[in-house]
Amino acid sequence: MVPHLVTALTGPINELEQRILESMPAIERWFRLEWMEHTPPFYTSVDVRNAGYKLAPVDTNLFPGGFNNLTEEMLPLAIQAAMAAIEKICPEAKNLLLIPEKRDSFYLMNVQRLVQIFSNAGLNVRLGTLDDAVTEPTRLPLPDGSALTLEPLQRTPRRLGLKDFDPCTILLNNDLSAGLPKILENLHEQYLLPPLHAGWAVRRKSNHFHSYEEVAKKFAKLLGMDPWLINPMYAHCGKVDWSEGAGLECVQTNVDALLSKIRRKHKEYGIGEKPFVVVKADNGTHGRGVVTIRDAKDLEEVNRRTRERMGASKDGQAVSEVIIQEGVPTYERIHDAVAEPVVYMIDRYVVGGFYRMHAERGIDENLNAPGSSFVPLAFAESSHLPRPGEKPGVSAPNRFYMYGVIGRLAMLAASYELEATDPEAEIYE
Amino acid sequence: MVPHLVTALTGPINELEQRILESMPAIERWFRLEWMEHTPPFYTSVDVRNAGYKLAPVDTNLFPGGFNNLTEEMLPLAIQAAMAAIEKICPEAKNLLLIPEKRDSFYLMNVQRLVQIFSNAGLNVRLGTLDDAVTEPTRLPLPDGSALTLEPLQRTPRRLGLKDFDPCTILLNNDLSAGLPKILENLHEQYLLPPLHAGWAVRRKSNHFHSYEEVAKKFAKLLGMDPWLINPMYAHCGKVDWSEGAGLECVQTNVDALLSKIRRKHKEYGIGEKPFVVVKADNGTHGRGVVTIRDAKDLEEVNRRTRERMGASKDGQAVSEVIIQEGVPTYERIHDAVAEPVVYMIDRYVVGGFYRMHAERGIDENLNAPGSSFVPLAFAESSHLPRPGEKPGVSAPNRFYMYGVIGRLAMLAASYELEATDPEAEIYE
Repeated sequence: MVPHLVTALTGPINELEQRILESMPAIERWFRLEWMEHTPPFYTSVDVRNAGYKLAPVDTNLFPGGFNNLTEEMLPLAIQAAMAAIEKICPEAKNLLLIPEKRDSFYLMNVQRLVQIFSNAGLNVRLGTLDDAVTEPTRLPLPDGSALTLEPLQRTPRRLGLKDFDPCTILLNNDLSAGLPKILENLHEQYLLPPLHAGWAVRRKSNHFHSYEEVAKKFAKLLGMDPWLINPMYAHCGKVDWSEGAGLECVQTNVDALLSKIRRKHKEYGIGEKPFVVVKADNGTHGRGVVTIRDAKDLEEVNRRTRERMGASKDGQAVSEVIIQEGVPTYERIHDAVAEPVVYMIDRYVVGGFYRMHAERGIDENLNAPGSSFVPLAFAESSHLPRPGEKPGVSAPNRFYMYGVIGRLAMLAASYELEATDPEAEIYE
Repeated sequence: MVPHLVTALTGPINELEQRILESMPAIERWFRLEWMEHTPPFYTSVDVRNAGYKLAPVDTNLFPGGFNNLTEEMLPLAIQAAMAAIEKICPEAKNLLLIPEKRDSFYLMNVQRLVQIFSNAGLNVRLGTLDDAVTEPTRLPLPDGSALTLEPLQRTPRRLGLKDFDPCTILLNNDLSAGLPKILENLHEQYLLPPLHAGWAVRRKSNHFHSYEEVAKKFAKLLGMDPWLINPMYAHCGKVDWSEGAGLECVQTNVDALLSKIRRKHKEYGIGEKPFVVVKADNGTHGRGVVTIRDAKDLEEVNRRTRERMGASKDGQAVSEVIIQEGVPTYERIHDAVAEPVVYMIDRYVVGGFYRMHAERGIDENLNAPGSSFVPLAFAESSHLPRPGEKPGVSAPNRFYMYGVIGRLAMLAASYELEATDPEAEIYE
């Protein structure tokens, strides 16, 4: 079950692991106190990269798919977390409306898993679709022979539901990359989770990593360590038109500056790695248009080759905002494939995780691409509970606890981020 | 892992199972609403008996031992539930003081498991003892080679702690059969859990089953069924002196009346079983002094034989109050041993369970006796999640879901009971 970890067994990451394990009660208490002040996202998945010399989240998904990649053993944990979440939001709720994306049957297995989790947590779950083409209940066959039923949404002036189905909570499993649908606006009588401004039509990665930096600094202070060990540095540029070449100067300058900063850090820690940065759209693109750059001079060349690729984001528009992020190589491998851990959370609880692996990609490349596969990992199995006495670096359980901590730091950052970007925040203040 | 269930595959219990499965979201919602009004006990274990024709809790323990009998796989679930519990009670807490009983090393394994659960949930856990003989930190070796340290309590006028250790919460794993220790009184600045009136020095089984009857009626109404299917009938007698024979008349009358009531119910359902009742002390005696009676005439004879046995309760005093309870035979068997499921809960969540089995006892006898052993049962493993489509009676997972529901009904009854018997209730009203 536990893949062989080839993470370097020496260096800063083991000191970090040791410090995190020793501080377990303090860390858990710190999270408790943070959650007293901040509301966790309803559910979150976080891609983590372990470079041996640093460990960092590289992507925080607020509409996680892939729940079907978690092991069966984690289901009770997910159900218990879902119960805790519902209790706080809408304890009297009978009905949950789930709005999935329009994707392939592999994705539908994820939807089926979500239906299972929330049914077991005590809700009647039905599926509504944003697709206007669906005008009556439609049966969607699943690979395992079962089926899901997708129904057209019914909107009244103040509420959203289905035929004979009035939910207390509407759960989006749709990242709204295509824009904010009118039908989801002004639903002040119901809970719409995650909120609209968590969708990629509005959300920006740079806001998230700005919040993450704040969280990483706080956490690093708690543990008495350099925040860089868990924080990927970043910069961002607005209004870059890849097809016209406009705004490329900003990218060039920032790539340069970031590479210098990384070089200084590597020197400080005696890290032999060649620094690189990752340039990607500041809003979500399901892993598309992610470019690895090792030298600012590469950018011109890379630009020529990738102009077309990056120019077309999901909704067909030119990428207009760009985030430049410190590249964190992943030194985890399963067999010969490069792998990165993905941590899943419901409410404030880690409920599982898996390894995303890609046999044809390098350690400094994006793995969220066609050809990737998944190895379920019971992060939360008891055999993976932290074992404080063990030597750092040699215990998979301890490593998984550390990944769960980093995943939760990114989730906390998402909570900060959503508070800071809430368009209705002033109403409540 | 899953023992072979020999429970009759036909009859009322399967109708009950079917109804419970069909009503899963409604049941979970009903519990949610109940927990909005009532506070669950901190932790609870419930002995359940499945007679094929009825399913009932027979004992509700508010200071559960035996956490070490749960499978390793359930630990993450227990930790998550413990986190949820702490969050509500004392989110800022750093320290938890655990007060165990003075028992054998098998019991210490339970204490060790509790320490593990609450450490992982983010607390510094230390052990304090009510034993005055312990005047300095004392190392208690465990069968697995590790050790626990027991420390003397330090009381100040308003708080209880250990040397250099001031806890927010004091968790009792000591049922206080021996009486209420002065040192635990008037701790209004700290959370003492469970509260003193949950200890057997004060608590009465008859109060619990009075509350359980109320809960069972509510639940039966929700499901549209006869509450008797999940409720063991009972009566109680105060001031019975077994050594003097005083108060035996009350017992005799009630045994007679209860046997008649059971006979009527058996006739109504066409049950061929010979009715029996169980006579036991109205406060806890760790399973001692439990007598099975099939006929009121037996009582005189039984009395002669058991006078001595029942006369000596844990603290050496004569049993003075008695509960007479409808006997629920257990038709579960593991190999050839009679078995009964035990459900474990932390806060409002089922975190696991096991089978208590006893090769030398009959289906109508108390199994909580020397010679019993345990088969851990992952009630909460995903392979044991309810599967609504399956035929009643043939699916172990569905049966375990049902046991979890009954366990939670008994826990809810304990919550009602503790509210009704709270000596300080008027202060808060």
